[in-house]
Amino acid sequence: MQTSTMYNMWLQYKIVNENNKDFWREVAVLSNSCIARSIKEELRFALNSMYKIAPDITTNHQAKIVIGVIKEISGLLNGKQKEIIADLPEEGYLITNNQGQLILTGKTDKALLYAVFHVLREVQLGNDVTSLNVVEGPKNILRMVNQWDNLDGSVERGYSGNSIFYENGEIVKDKSRIRDYARFLASVGINAISINNVNVWEEETYFITKKYLPEIKEIADIFKSYGVTLYLSINFASPIAIDGLDTADPLVDKVRKWWKEKVTEIYQYIPYFGGFVVKADSEHRPGPFTYGRDHADGSNMLAEALAPYNGKVIWRCFVYNCVQDWRDRSTDRARAAYDHFKPLDGKFHENVILQIKNGPMDFQVREPVSPLIGAMEHTNQMVEFQIAQEYTGQQRDLCYLIPQWKHVLKFDTHIKGEGTTIEEIVAGNVHSYKYSGLAAVSNIGNDDNWTGNTLAQANLYGYGRLTWNPGLAAETIAKEWIQQTFGKKESVLKTMEEILMDSWHIYENYTAPLGIGWMVTPHSHYGPNIDGYEYSRWGTYHFADRQGIGVDRTIETGTGYTAQYEMPNQLLYNNIDTCPDELLLFFHHVPYKYTLKSGKTVIQHIYDTHFSGYEQVEQLISKWETIKEHIDVPRYKNISERFSMQKRNAKEWRDQINTYFYRKSGIEDEKRRTIY
Amino acid sequence: MQTSTMYNMWLQYKIVNENNKDFWREVAVLSNSCIARSIKEELRFALNSMYKIAPDITTNHQAKIVIGVIKEISGLLNGKQKEIIADLPEEGYLITNNQGQLILTGKTDKALLYAVFHVLREVQLGNDVTSLNVVEGPKNILRMVNQWDNLDGSVERGYSGNSIFYENGEIVKDKSRIRDYARFLASVGINAISINNVNVWEEETYFITKKYLPEIKEIADIFKSYGVTLYLSINFASPIAIDGLDTADPLVDKVRKWWKEKVTEIYQYIPYFGGFVVKADSEHRPGPFTYGRDHADGSNMLAEALAPYNGKVIWRCFVYNCVQDWRDRSTDRARAAYDHFKPLDGKFHENVILQIKNGPMDFQVREPVSPLIGAMEHTNQMVEFQIAQEYTGQQRDLCYLIPQWKHVLKFDTHIKGEGTTIEEIVAGNVHSYKYSGLAAVSNIGNDDNWTGNTLAQANLYGYGRLTWNPGLAAETIAKEWIQQTFGKKESVLKTMEEILMDSWHIYENYTAPLGIGWMVTPHSHYGPNIDGYEYSRWGTYHFADRQGIGVDRTIETGTGYTAQYEMPNQLLYNNIDTCPDELLLFFHHVPYKYTLKSGKTVIQHIYDTHFSGYEQVEQLISKWETIKEHIDVPRYKNISERFSMQKRNAKEWRDQINTYFYRKSGIEDEKRRTIY
Repeated sequence: MQTSTMYNMWLQYKIVNENNKDFWREVAVLSNSCIARSIKEELRFALNSMYKIAPDITTNHQAKIVIGVIKEISGLLNGKQKEIIADLPEEGYLITNNQGQLILTGKTDKALLYAVFHVLREVQLGNDVTSLNVVEGPKNILRMVNQWDNLDGSVERGYSGNSIFYENGEIVKDKSRIRDYARFLASVGINAISINNVNVWEEETYFITKKYLPEIKEIADIFKSYGVTLYLSINFASPIAIDGLDTADPLVDKVRKWWKEKVTEIYQYIPYFGGFVVKADSEHRPGPFTYGRDHADGSNMLAEALAPYNGKVIWRCFVYNCVQDWRDRSTDRARAAYDHFKPLDGKFHENVILQIKNGPMDFQVREPVSPLIGAMEHTNQMVEFQIAQEYTGQQRDLCYLIPQWKHVLKFDTHIKGEGTTIEEIVAGNVHSYKYSGLAAVSNIGNDDNWTGNTLAQANLYGYGRLTWNPGLAAETIAKEWIQQTFGKKESVLKTMEEILMDSWHIYENYTAPLGIGWMVTPHSHYGPNIDGYEYSRWGTYHFADRQGIGVDRTIETGTGYTAQYEMPNQLLYNNIDTCPDELLLFFHHVPYKYTLKSGKTVIQHIYDTHFSGYEQVEQLISKWETIKEHIDVPRYKNISERFSMQKRNAKEWRDQINTYFYRKSGIEDEKRRTIY
Repeated sequence: MQTSTMYNMWLQYKIVNENNKDFWREVAVLSNSCIARSIKEELRFALNSMYKIAPDITTNHQAKIVIGVIKEISGLLNGKQKEIIADLPEEGYLITNNQGQLILTGKTDKALLYAVFHVLREVQLGNDVTSLNVVEGPKNILRMVNQWDNLDGSVERGYSGNSIFYENGEIVKDKSRIRDYARFLASVGINAISINNVNVWEEETYFITKKYLPEIKEIADIFKSYGVTLYLSINFASPIAIDGLDTADPLVDKVRKWWKEKVTEIYQYIPYFGGFVVKADSEHRPGPFTYGRDHADGSNMLAEALAPYNGKVIWRCFVYNCVQDWRDRSTDRARAAYDHFKPLDGKFHENVILQIKNGPMDFQVREPVSPLIGAMEHTNQMVEFQIAQEYTGQQRDLCYLIPQWKHVLKFDTHIKGEGTTIEEIVAGNVHSYKYSGLAAVSNIGNDDNWTGNTLAQANLYGYGRLTWNPGLAAETIAKEWIQQTFGKKESVLKTMEEILMDSWHIYENYTAPLGIGWMVTPHSHYGPNIDGYEYSRWGTYHFADRQGIGVDRTIETGTGYTAQYEMPNQLLYNNIDTCPDELLLFFHHVPYKYTLKSGKTVIQHIYDTHFSGYEQVEQLISKWETIKEHIDVPRYKNISERFSMQKRNAKEWRDQINTYFYRKSGIEDEKRRTIY
C-alpha cells in the first residue's frame, strides 16, 4: 500500500481525533478466510495510519471490538438482534454496541468486510463509533464496474493513464495495484468487476483459454478476498477464433457444446467465476445476428453453459445501426435498444441480465432515461452508467456525476404506476428480477491518482455508494468523500461541495445545449465540433439549420420515439408545451426564437448558458484558489492543472457554439457580448 | 525489371509496328560511364520487348544508330550541327539522320540518356524515328521530385502503399525498385530527387551521419546512373540532435563549423551529392526563428558549407502561423510566405533556392498563384507542385493535374510587364537566377502500379514532361501518356483523353466551391467536412454564415492580401467586379445571392456544380466502361475500383455541401433537386 495522498483516494486514514484510540487496541476477528485476512490487513493499516497503534488482532470474545459472523458470535447478541440478522441479505450487516462491546456481524465474511469499512468511514468522518447502532444491507444485488482495459495496456475511453491490469500485451506481474483497487471497490460496496474491454480484440479472445486463465485466476483471487466477483468480457465468435469452428451460431449443437466445455474449463480454474459480459452485434462486434438468431438465442446459449456453476450472462443492450446514412431521417438511434430488446421479453434465461445504458444514446451530459429500463417485466435488467467521463470532460474538466445518476435513479417510469422509479426497478422491487443492479464503466488507470483529475475520484466513490444505497443524496456523498479525502476543515468541505455540486450543470452549460448532445470532436469526444457528427454514420444529429434545431421524436411528425415511454411520460415528452426545457431539443425541432419555459428564447438560452458556463468555470477556479492553503501540493497542482484545461475547453465550447449558432441564426445576442 | 502492365507505367515497350525493326539490330554506344550503362540496359530491354531482338551494342561508328557525346563523334557531324551542339546546355541533345545514320549526341552522357528516351518515346508513339531531326534542351535547370518518405516505411501524404526506399526503420536492402523509379524519372527528364520527408523526424536526422551515408550513397549511385542528383531533407537542429551542441543558431561559429564539417563528411561519401532541402520554422519544425535569426541567416549558413562542393540549399517558403486563433480575422495565412520572404530579397547566397508552393495556401484544387513567385528579383526561386493528390482526391478520385499546373505556369505576374509568366520566371528568363526550376511532391509508393490509381501515373509523367518543356499542352501530354501506357487504339486514346482532361474541373465541381478551398476532413484531407477547419488553428476558414461566404482579402476592407500582386492582377483580384468567378470566394466575402459573371448566383452555382459534379463522375465511369474491352484486366480492375470510390466520395461531397449551404442560406435550389 502506497502512501501518497493522491493514490490513497478516500482511504487516507488521517488522524481525525484521538477519541477512540484506546478502544481499538484489541480487535477480535473470528475468522480466517481470505476476506477475514483482508479485514485484518485493513484494520492494521488504518489504525496504524490514524492512531499510530498496532492493534492486537485476536479471537477474544471479550475484546472491545468483535468482528464475526453470526454463527461464531451468537452468544454475544440478544434475541432481537439475532432476528434482525436472520432477515438480512448475505451482504447485510449489523453494527451494535452491546454493553460497551462493539459488535460487527452478519451472515458472511463479506458482510463483515462491509461493516468494517463502514466503521472506518465513520472514524474518518470524525464520528464516535463506540455507540454505533446500524443495520444495513445493499439495495442492489449486482454492484459492478466494467474495465474497458486492453491487453496492450491501453484503456478504451480511459483518461487516467494506462491499464493497471495489463501492459505491453501481458497481464501485469506486480498485482499490488490491483489489490489496492479491490480495497477501494470493496470500501464502497462494489461486488463485481469485469476486467477486460467489452470490445474483445484478437488476443483478448484467448482470455478464456489456458493461456491466460492461470493468471486471471490470480486476479480473481485478489478480488475474491475483497468480496468482488470477477467477470470476463467475451468474444461471441470465440468458437471460431479459438478453435476454428466454422460457425458461432448459438443454435448449432457443436457451438453449444463448445461453450459448455469452455465454461467447465473456466470454472476448473476459477470456481467462483462470475460469468460473461457480452457486447454482441454492436459496433461491428460479432453476435447472433450473423446467423439469423436473436439476442435471446445468443445469451441463452451462454446462460445454459454457465447455469450449473451459478454463472451469469450480462448482455449489453447497446445495439444500434452504426452505419446509418445521415440523409435518412426515419432511422432513430434512440429507438434502437427498445426496438431490439422489448419484443424479446420473457425469452431470456433467469441467469441472463440485460445491461442497459442510462440513456438511449450514449452517456451524453443530458439525455432522457432509457425507456427500455423497466419495460421488460420478465427479463433481468441492470442500468449502466459511465464513471469514465467520455462525453463529460474526460477527467480534465470537472463533472461530478452523482447528481446526474441520481436524476436517472429517481426517474419515475410509471411502468407500474406512480413510484416505479429506475431505482426501484434495478433494485428488483418493481418486477421480480432474480438478478439486477448497476454496472458502470470505470474511470481508473495507472496515473498516481487513479483518475486523472483527483476530483474525479469522487465519481468512483459516489458510484459505489449509490449502488449500495441509491437513497443517499448527492450532497451527502460529496461531503463524505471530501471529508475522507481532504479532511474536515469547514471551508474545504463547504467550498469543495459547492464546486462538485455545481459542476455537472456548468459542464452542461458550456457544451451541447438543451439535451441535443454530441457536437464533440469525432473519435476523441473531447472539445467542440458542432457538425462533427452531423454528416456521419453514427445516428447522432442535431439538424440545425437557419430556422431552428432539434430532433423531432414525436409520434405525430417525428420518429415516434416518445411512444416508447409509458404514460404520462410519453405525453410529457411528446408535447412540446410540457417537454422539460433541458430535454427540449432531444424531443423536438424548434425555431431559434421558440420560447422556453424559462422565458428565454432557445437562441438566447444558448448564448446565455455558454457565456455563463465559461464564467462559472472561472468562478470554480476562484473558489478552488480560496482553499489552496488547505490542500497538499501534489493534489493542489493536479487539480489546478485540470482546471486550466477546463477553462481552455470551456472557452472553445463557448465561442464555437455561440459563433456557430449566431452565423446560422443571424440573431443577435440581447446583451451584445462578443461572438466571433 | 518487372513486366506487369501496371508496374511498367509509360515504359510498356509494347510492339507498335515492325517498321524500324532491322534498323535497331546494331546500336553504337560510345561510352562506358554509369549513365551509358543505363542507356545500354534500357535499349536492350526496350528492343527485346518491342521487337524481340537482342541488339548488338557496339562502338562501331558505322552502325545505323550511333549514340555518343560530341567529342567522340564529331567526325560524323557537319559544321552547322557542331554549332548547334555548342549552343546547347549540358542536358540538351541533337537527334539527326546523317546519310541514313541516326545520330544521338550532346555534350554529356546525361544528354544522350534523354535523347535515347526521346527516341524510344517516338517509337512507342508509332513514329518513324529513322528520319528524326530534333534539337532539344530543358527549359528548367532544376527538375526535381521530393519524396515525403519516412524511415518507418510510411509516406506522409502517400496514397500508393508504403515507401519504396524504406521499410521497418531501415533503408530497403533490395534496391531494384529504386532503380526502376530512377528510370521512370529519367525518361521524363527529372534530374533531382530528395529522398526523405521534409518533416525530418528523430531517426531520419541521422541520415547525414556515417550510420546511414554508406547506404544512401548506394541510392545516390543508382540515381546518378540515370542523371538524377540526390538531395536530403535535413533537420535544422541537427547540431543539437546529432552532436549535442547547445544551439543551432546559424550565426554561432561552432554551429557553422559543425555544418561545414558535416557537409565535408557527406561529400566524402557522395561526391556528387546535390544538397539540402529544408523545411524550417514551419509547422513546428526547428529553424532560425528560435534564435532570433531570419531565413537568410539560416539558409546562408548551410549554403556556405555546401558552396565548395557546388551543393545547393533548397529552402521551403511554406512558413505560416499554424497555431492561429480562429477568432482572429486579422491574420491571413495566404499572406505569410510573401510577408516572411519578400523583405529578404537579395540576402540569400547564390546557391540558395527558395521553393515556393504554387498557391499561397496548400495545394488546394483551386488557388490563385502565389504572389511570391517572381517577386524576389535577386533570389533564386523554384515553384513547388504536389503530384501526390493530398487535396485532390488522394489517387482514389481521378484528378489529372497537368491543366492545373499549366494554369499556374501560364499565369502572367506582370512583375516585369506583360509576359512575365511563372513559366518564364522559374526558367530564369525574367530575373537572372543562377538556379531555378520546379519541384514537386511525388505520388509514388510500393503499390504494384506505383501510384494507387493507375491513371495517376499520368500526373508523374506529365510533371516530368512539363519540367522539361512547360510549353507542352496538357492534351499533348495526355495523348503521349495514354498511347505509351495503353496503346494507340483510337477509341482508347480519345476516351481517355476526355476522361483525363475533364477530371480537374469535375473534382473542383463536387468539392469546395469558387476557390474557397478546404472543407475537408481534418488530418486525412479526404472527403468533405465543411466546418472541419473552420474553428481550428490552421488559418483555413470560409466564414460562411446565413448571409454569405468567402474571405475578404481586399485592401480596403480585408486582409490586404491582394496588394501582394503586381498591377493589374492586384486590381483584378481586389475588385469584386473583375475578380474571376473561380477565385471569387478566395478574395471576397459575398452574399449567397451575389451574381457571378456566369449569370448564376453563388448559391445556385454551388448547387449546380455539386449536382453536375456527381453526374460528371457517373459519366466518367460510363465513358470508361466503353473502352473496357481494350484494357487489360488488372488495370481495368484497379481503375474501376478507384472510380467506385470516387463516386461514393462525390456523392458525400455533393450532399454534404448542398445540405450545409441549404441549411445555412435557406435558399431553395431553383431546380428543386433533392437536398437533405
